[in-house]
Amino acid sequence: MPSGKPAITVRDVARKAGVHPGTVSRVLNPDRRHLISEETALRVERVAQDLGYGVNHIARGLRTRRSSTVGVLIPDLTNPLFPPMVRGIEDYLHPAGYTALLTNTDSDPEREIRGLEALMARQVDGFIIAPTVSNVARVKEMIDEGRPVVLVNRTVPRVNAFAVTPDDRRGAAAAVEHLVGLGHRRIAHLGGPQDVSPGHDRYRGFLEAMREHHLGGEAEGLAGFAETFAGGAGVEPMRELLARDAFTAIFAANDLLALDALDALRAAGLRCPRDVSLVGFNDMPFADRFDPPLTTVRFSHYEMGRRAAELLLGQVGGDTSQPTTVVLSTELVERSSTSAVSRGAHTSRRRTAVAAAK
Amino acid sequence: MPSGKPAITVRDVARKAGVHPGTVSRVLNPDRRHLISEETALRVERVAQDLGYGVNHIARGLRTRRSSTVGVLIPDLTNPLFPPMVRGIEDYLHPAGYTALLTNTDSDPEREIRGLEALMARQVDGFIIAPTVSNVARVKEMIDEGRPVVLVNRTVPRVNAFAVTPDDRRGAAAAVEHLVGLGHRRIAHLGGPQDVSPGHDRYRGFLEAMREHHLGGEAEGLAGFAETFAGGAGVEPMRELLARDAFTAIFAANDLLALDALDALRAAGLRCPRDVSLVGFNDMPFADRFDPPLTTVRFSHYEMGRRAAELLLGQVGGDTSQPTTVVLSTELVERSSTSAVSRGAHTSRRRTAVAAAK
Repeated sequence: MPSGKPAITVRDVARKAGVHPGTVSRVLNPDRRHLISEETALRVERVAQDLGYGVNHIARGLRTRRSSTVGVLIPDLTNPLFPPMVRGIEDYLHPAGYTALLTNTDSDPEREIRGLEALMARQVDGFIIAPTVSNVARVKEMIDEGRPVVLVNRTVPRVNAFAVTPDDRRGAAAAVEHLVGLGHRRIAHLGGPQDVSPGHDRYRGFLEAMREHHLGGEAEGLAGFAETFAGGAGVEPMRELLARDAFTAIFAANDLLALDALDALRAAGLRCPRDVSLVGFNDMPFADRFDPPLTTVRFSHYEMGRRAAELLLGQVGGDTSQPTTVVLSTELVERSSTSAVSRGAHTSRRRTAVAAAK
Repeated sequence: MPSGKPAITVRDVARKAGVHPGTVSRVLNPDRRHLISEETALRVERVAQDLGYGVNHIARGLRTRRSSTVGVLIPDLTNPLFPPMVRGIEDYLHPAGYTALLTNTDSDPEREIRGLEALMARQVDGFIIAPTVSNVARVKEMIDEGRPVVLVNRTVPRVNAFAVTPDDRRGAAAAVEHLVGLGHRRIAHLGGPQDVSPGHDRYRGFLEAMREHHLGGEAEGLAGFAETFAGGAGVEPMRELLARDAFTAIFAANDLLALDALDALRAAGLRCPRDVSLVGFNDMPFADRFDPPLTTVRFSHYEMGRRAAELLLGQVGGDTSQPTTVVLSTELVERSSTSAVSRGAHTSRRRTAVAAAK
């Protein structure tokens, strides 16, 4: 349990020594100290000693005797797309002598902060993280302190960080292209939370592609949004969409929301794909096992993990180049949840959907 | 990276001080020191100091200033039954002020040892683990050193440890009962690895239940074994079983192996449940989404996690009672992968299966 007495932080040392927090981190890290002038380094060390920051210094020393570790914060362990990502991270870290320590945050800002603090207290060498909106400021601080950080699956506005993301906009466009190619015109979007980049960018990609096909006029009204990307969050917005409007196809912002859409369709007496076609996003494990097997937008979560680990170890090793974002390409995987639109489906479906939702 | 110089361990101190390693751990843990006589405690501390074990001592002191952590070693993150277990662990730890740090071991003894060492170096307060066979000796050592440990999902022969497991034998028996009740007589078992208790005990439960129904004579021959519980490991043994013998039902030792059985059946031109009924074990997430929805043996992985965390925090808090094993009850969940046997299915199926496997 925490003792309640606040620990001396890098920021305290930086303030007193009149330097940037990142400078303090580098001075206290034997692998990076050479990046700082000797005069500054000595001043920082003296201030750190005065403030009693030496305890952490000893812990850092301890670390160098042990196998290195990387902290990975997973927003939702029950989403099966994370295990392949973790495997990608581990397969890259393992030969380099590093171990991944994971914490599950359930996208809960409080759990996320606790996980971050626990890992920092354990002197991990860096972090791979998809931060919740509430903790963006804290993550920015970590980066400013010189801690190696890589964002995965999302970018964060106004934070200049290393990141690996899928090409959300093109992926969404590919889903729309596929449905338009099957003759669909009234395509609805079951979106994710709009305050994180995957939710926002997939919606934007959907709108752009609809506009390109001169379907933009109706597209904005044909969208409903789940508050999270977790399974279950899509049922209610899907029911509202069904009650509100008629459509022959749905593009869901991820596969778990697609499963929710499927449940809502069934509850409304609609069949997939006969009455409504459905496209997901992620191609999560088991998506090919579902009934019907899910058409979805695939990108390699394994590769996302590998690239994130690569960017992170680069920083740990002292790479001081400007942060870059690696954007992974996507591809549409056609399975059985989508089919050609049937003539006159729109009008009859509208009646069915509205009746069922009442 | 490790420096190559071996660290002084609790065992070194214990040997020199002439005490049990558990005694050394207790002396060096401020919360448990009172359990040891003052005379012994002073001797141990002197020896620890002489050997330079003080560095770890300082690290332990550091720990008490920070939020507490528990190490969780997960044998296969891609098996979706672990996330609910982790959630159970976290939901118990969270209100107590603890954070879970997870490592994925892929059931690889080397990754497991590295994970253990990394977590020990990070001063976690205890471990929740399903150890691989190769590392049983190391885990026994940890327990002897006085480290809090709880085994999950398995027990380990000749190791007296706290553990939480499902009732594997009764669960397997329930699967057989269900199939016999549907008229099946020739029931095959697609087993897991026989050197770990879930694999071994589910096979034993299968055999016992078959004997009870006077089907024991053939039962032993009607079994094939996968080398791991991971997805994919069951395809080859299932193909061999199909080539070797005829049966109208399969009990698979877990749901991932059941999915492999499904693939092998399809490849052999057999349909489930019309030609062959199938029962899994675990009721993993999405088992109700598969095609066909899977009949399986359920137990609560969430509860397994909660109980494990409870047993662990008991030990961390100084509970010195004898290790206990909590056995969780199981129940059969009937879905659409099982149905009544059809007359004459046996002979015709034998021909089909053998022909397809050739």
